[in-house]
Amino acid sequence: MPSQELLNSYAKLVVQVGANVEAGQPVAITAYVEHAPFVRALVDAAYEAGARYVDVQYADEYVRRELIEHVDEELLDWSPPWHIERLRGIEDRGAAIIVRGHPDLTLFDGLDGDRVGKARPKDLTAFWLRLVNERLVNWTIVACPTEGWAGRIFGEPDVERLWDAVATTVRLDEQDPVSAWTEHVAKLKARAAALNERRFDAIRYRGPGTDLTVGLLPESRWLGADEETAWGRRHCANLPTEEVFTTPDRRRADGTIRSSRPLALNGSVVHDLEFRLEGGRIVDANASSGLEVVLGDLDTDAGARQLGEIALVDGSSRVDRTGITFFETLFDENAASHIAWGQAILWAVEGASELSPEERLEAGISDSATHTDFMVGSPELEIDGLAQDGTAVPILRGTEWQLD
Amino acid sequence: MPSQELLNSYAKLVVQVGANVEAGQPVAITAYVEHAPFVRALVDAAYEAGARYVDVQYADEYVRRELIEHVDEELLDWSPPWHIERLRGIEDRGAAIIVRGHPDLTLFDGLDGDRVGKARPKDLTAFWLRLVNERLVNWTIVACPTEGWAGRIFGEPDVERLWDAVATTVRLDEQDPVSAWTEHVAKLKARAAALNERRFDAIRYRGPGTDLTVGLLPESRWLGADEETAWGRRHCANLPTEEVFTTPDRRRADGTIRSSRPLALNGSVVHDLEFRLEGGRIVDANASSGLEVVLGDLDTDAGARQLGEIALVDGSSRVDRTGITFFETLFDENAASHIAWGQAILWAVEGASELSPEERLEAGISDSATHTDFMVGSPELEIDGLAQDGTAVPILRGTEWQLD
Repeated sequence: MPSQELLNSYAKLVVQVGANVEAGQPVAITAYVEHAPFVRALVDAAYEAGARYVDVQYADEYVRRELIEHVDEELLDWSPPWHIERLRGIEDRGAAIIVRGHPDLTLFDGLDGDRVGKARPKDLTAFWLRLVNERLVNWTIVACPTEGWAGRIFGEPDVERLWDAVATTVRLDEQDPVSAWTEHVAKLKARAAALNERRFDAIRYRGPGTDLTVGLLPESRWLGADEETAWGRRHCANLPTEEVFTTPDRRRADGTIRSSRPLALNGSVVHDLEFRLEGGRIVDANASSGLEVVLGDLDTDAGARQLGEIALVDGSSRVDRTGITFFETLFDENAASHIAWGQAILWAVEGASELSPEERLEAGISDSATHTDFMVGSPELEIDGLAQDGTAVPILRGTEWQLD
Repeated sequence: MPSQELLNSYAKLVVQVGANVEAGQPVAITAYVEHAPFVRALVDAAYEAGARYVDVQYADEYVRRELIEHVDEELLDWSPPWHIERLRGIEDRGAAIIVRGHPDLTLFDGLDGDRVGKARPKDLTAFWLRLVNERLVNWTIVACPTEGWAGRIFGEPDVERLWDAVATTVRLDEQDPVSAWTEHVAKLKARAAALNERRFDAIRYRGPGTDLTVGLLPESRWLGADEETAWGRRHCANLPTEEVFTTPDRRRADGTIRSSRPLALNGSVVHDLEFRLEGGRIVDANASSGLEVVLGDLDTDAGARQLGEIALVDGSSRVDRTGITFFETLFDENAASHIAWGQAILWAVEGASELSPEERLEAGISDSATHTDFMVGSPELEIDGLAQDGTAVPILRGTEWQLD
């Protein structure tokens, strides 16, 4: 474990900049048992920020392993009603902090990949996605190193080294991390503004194994760094964050795309993922490992095979600069441009929150109980914006941002 | 941590003899984060026994410390609705395993004792007591050593030594712990039968600082070792258990009683507790430390100051033979005879479950949201049974059992 000082400084950043906890709010913290020392610092920081009540739910992946091995098929995606009841406790202007950092990325090895893919509490995920999409809570996802996670990255459980890397990515090495974040947020918002000015009709990806064009909606809006709740509370949904992102048209994506980095999904690691898309749908999937977990996730529902998000990241990314593959989407997605299948990011589509679920589908906005990011950015990838008349405008050439 | 073999053997005993988990049951396990390795063994043993679904809730006493320090007064005894919802998941023939073993018995030192006493989720406790009293779940309370707990006992965090002591008390040192338990259960049930045969009108305690007579109800039944759910599933509610116990008349207790051992209550340790009782009620309380926590608990409700249980333990107790004060009621109450204030044990009163709450009170059965045991047995204590005509029959002379 790192020094109490570092834990406290990180916790303060997460509470003040990440969730941006408001005085009088209930706060729900979700973490793994292995994170207890960091969680305690978070609880302290949340009360310091004036939280009304802080609830902590500790998950245990060893217990989830037992569940995947033993429960009846129909219970694999069951959501215990008390977990949903817990989210009800924050749905009226509460705050949420989710701590990631898997205790052991090899834990689910040897389990039936199909069951691993299905073992996701469906109603709970849907409830949470509603809170997020209707912007009812100020939330953040952050990470806490564990021995098992460090072991997967470095080949030895060097937690100190992983703490150093995480601290770098979230700017805890700056004199004043909170104001460093203010500057960083401004830069990403300027990028999003430049993209919105162009009103691209589509984004085109070209590189080894990749030639994909993804259509945007006229209402697609590029966003970055921070977000706002329905009542106007700003928060950074991810620490770290290096991306600008939007929601594409679920009906327009054609071609092939090759993932550039391993993907940690439901406790498995997927290597060499490749997709072929037609008319917006993933019609073919391949991988050198972990394919069943991907297929399980793609079978979540009818919307899972359509795209819900595209995001752009350049080489100035602090995550990319660590040179580490974290096997954790929160970091790896911020090292490289990425795409998500499944649920759309509704607040990245103007007017989407006023539409009914049917109207959203009709308008080309994806609907699913899953949302899974995979990395596509690499030094060989070219990303262009396509104007309505088909003119290509360079956005990224490898790791270099092109658009001003 | 002890060997995986010991953890597995203990977990098997807890699941098969303690909760006696039935195939197809949902199982709720409640433990502290520090218990994770043992909890994982329990989950495995529960699925091995055919559990349908095993839910684990990890509590964190450091988080509770923050709560006691920071939340508004009216939230101190608040029960998050999701915690109650969780118990609903087992109220229809589920099983429950509660793991005790405090991470640090000095953790609440320096906090406002009044707030510590009040910080107990009232509705949740009441819901749980209903499940227990209506015998709707097969449940057990067991313990798992922690460094902090070992430190409080031995002056150093000698977890190995505490594991050895716990293993002895629950008979894990026997060749076949499960059949050793069968014999032990039979012995305690024979004692309860002998007491029931006498139909004592009252129990009298005499010793240094103690001269107390507690009236029994004509319907009071002595019980020991194991219990039965409403649908006939046997289970051992406590591992270890060395007591025979019954529910007294809430209106008949007069005299003084001195506690013989320290009492760990709501994170504090109470020393030298003394009570004076009149007409069944605790009218005066003293202690050399921790008195506020006791007073907070006695103020829970109108029934808290009346007696809910009396229990008899002799010197053959494996807990007593370890010579250790565990600062944990689960053990210390099984080292010595004890008494509880607060909620009656309804299933120790014949016909009580058919009565309405008002009728129970009328019948002399205590009703409270709390139930707290304190130890009174010692080598100097004499315990007699008083027949209807006042004749005294020796039950215990110090540590020696007298009644056959």
